[in-house]
This record gives sequence, structure tokens and C-alpha cells, in this order.
Amino acid sequence: MCQSAPPIPPISPSNPPAHVCGCGGHGASATPEVGRRVPASHEMAMPEVPFPSPRVLAVAGADGLRRLVRHHHGLLRQSAIGHLFAADDGEFAALVERIADYVVEVCGGPTLFTPAHGNICMRTRHFPFSITERGREIWLEKLFQAMEESDFPAELQEEYWAWMEPFTVRMINRRTSKAQPVHLPYALARARFSGMPRQ
Amino acid sequence: MCQSAPPIPPISPSNPPAHVCGCGGHGASATPEVGRRVPASHEMAMPEVPFPSPRVLAVAGADGLRRLVRHHHGLLRQSAIGHLFAADDGEFAALVERIADYVVEVCGGPTLFTPAHGNICMRTRHFPFSITERGREIWLEKLFQAMEESDFPAELQEEYWAWMEPFTVRMINRRTSKAQPVHLPYALARARFSGMPRQ
Repeated sequence: MCQSAPPIPPISPSNPPAHVCGCGGHGASATPEVGRRVPASHEMAMPEVPFPSPRVLAVAGADGLRRLVRHHHGLLRQSAIGHLFAADDGEFAALVERIADYVVEVCGGPTLFTPAHGNICMRTRHFPFSITERGREIWLEKLFQAMEESDFPAELQEEYWAWMEPFTVRMINRRTSKAQPVHLPYALARARFSGMPRQ
Repeated sequence: MCQSAPPIPPISPSNPPAHVCGCGGHGASATPEVGRRVPASHEMAMPEVPFPSPRVLAVAGADGLRRLVRHHHGLLRQSAIGHLFAADDGEFAALVERIADYVVEVCGGPTLFTPAHGNICMRTRHFPFSITERGREIWLEKLFQAMEESDFPAELQEEYWAWMEPFTVRMINRRTSKAQPVHLPYALARARFSGMPRQ
């Protein structure tokens, strides 16, 4: 799917909102609203999420997945969304291990997360934290960097990304734009992030 | 439409999420995610918005609309969402007059808002403020109270409500639940709010 990936749509007036918002005119050619019926619509589109195949666990191993999660979250902690994570070192480390438990379980490994934490609906679990479209982009950028910097098998990167790229759309709960969240297929992410200078 | 209004859906496990979130199992019967493709979906549904007919301006008059907006915002300022509005008295009063300008213009009265403030897309204008589902409910409750307490014509209340009830869904930008925003048709709002004790 990445070979025919469309370019990232710019978040600008040339990227028209996905819905008719019914909030008034858009620009100079405002349409009077009086007596108008603005049709029903939907907010954010949530693309299909392909969960990892058994190959991911078979090739990376549970320990390889855990190392990726740890490296990723070390980067996130230093990023512009670091405030979303526990400030205390011990709490942060425990959080990262819980996330690793989740990833390993979802990839078909030992069931460590669900017995301890119950329902694993991740959108619901993220509601207490204000997660914007931009926050998701930072999270993804740091994931790409972590995949490159850690020993995560190169042959798994595209499949792992193809899970997380749409999955993370479902974590967004604070909208700051009518534009749809950026679609960033693996080929485009590689072109954008691979080998880029790190702050 | 209000005669056949369904009851307000409780925001509880008996109100199933409107989308398959692909975040894992939901409750005890969790489905393993490995290798699964979770279908595309949408976030918040935004219902049709019927903008006011010319009758609203004709009967209430621009001054009647302005009085309603002022009374409503006086109540909002004292409410649990008062922090969303300017704290300074002068700034608050100026804000309320701008909102009144918008309402009067949208209802077909003098064009006071657009020339001064341009594009009147209200969803976009609200993005800087974190507006939850509960914040919208408080806003609507105070609107009902304002319609009852001010001299707003009783014969217009249902039409005005039928505009604002779905319109305000489009102001929600901070989701805290997978449940759809509460649908509160006029008959139900009257049963719930009319003559209720005021804090």
C-alpha cells in the first residue's frame, strides 16, 4: 500500500474540511445561514487498523518488542509531548513496562496486560490525556526514530508502522483543526524521518 | 420531531460505543487482536443543523436576541464552564456583544459580525478552547434557563433550541467518551430543565 501512497495533505485552506460544519460561511463567499439546513456529517475519520501478524512476534520476539517500546518512550519523554507521561522516574518506568506488556500481548505473546488491567480499549484509556493531531505526529516520528535506532528487525518495520500509523489516529481526542489527521504511510515516513538529524 | 424523541442514552456500558475502536477487547470477552483488521470508522456524529427561519428575527427582534444572549452568558459565567470565557469584565462584555452580533446576523438581521471578524466558522473559532461533551450540556442547560427567565418569546423557544441543540455538537473538540454526544430534543429538555431549582 505504501508504494502508491498519496502525499501528506497540507493542513491549509487548500485542504478543504471533511465536513460542512454549518458554522457559517467559509471565506469571502459566505452563504447566509438563515433558514438553511446544514446536513449531518461526521467528525474525524478513523482508518482501518491492521493488527500485527504472528510474524512480528516470531521475528522480533517479546524481548525485541519490549526494547522497542522502551527506546521509543525514552525518546517521547524528551519530546514536546513528554508532559503526557509520568514525571516520576519509577512511575515512568512502570508505565513503559505496562505498555510493553500490552504490545507483546496484542502481538500474540504472553497475556500480561489484560489480567492486570482488564479491558484494553486504548482509546478509552487515553481519554484522561489531551491528545492532539500534532501529538500523534510527534509520537509517530519518535516511533520511526526508535525503530531505526534500536535493534528492531528492519524487515518488520513496515508492518509495525502499518499498525501504529492508523491505530494512533484513534488516540486523538483533542481536535484542533477540521482537517483529517495526517496519513503517513511507511514509505512517506521513511522519506521524511529516516536518518534525519535528531534534536 | 420532539414528540417521538427517544430517551437520552445513558453514558454507560449499556450504551455501546458507536465505533469498533480496534483498541482491544471490550470487557470479559476480549478478542485477540493478533492478525485482525479492525474496520474503518468515524468519530463523533454531527447531526443536521436547522438554522433559524426568518420568523425568529421577525418575532424576537434583534434586541430580543441580544437580551437572550446576554442573559445566557451571564449564567454561563457563573457555571462550571465559566473559565472558558474572558475573566475581565470589559472583555467579557465585549465578547458577549460579539456573540450577539453573530446570532443576529445568522438569524437574518444586520451584518455586524462578518465585516468585523471575517469567516464565521464557529467550530474553527472554538478550537483554542477545550470543549467537552459535558461542557456542551451545561451550555444548553443555561440556554434553556435563559429562555425561560428572559422575555424571549415562548413560541420561538422550540425552534431556537432545535438550532442550538445540534449546532453545539459541532463545538465539541475534546472527547472524553466513545459515546455519542447526548441528543436532547426540546420536549426532553423542557421535561428536564423547566422550572428546575437554580443553583
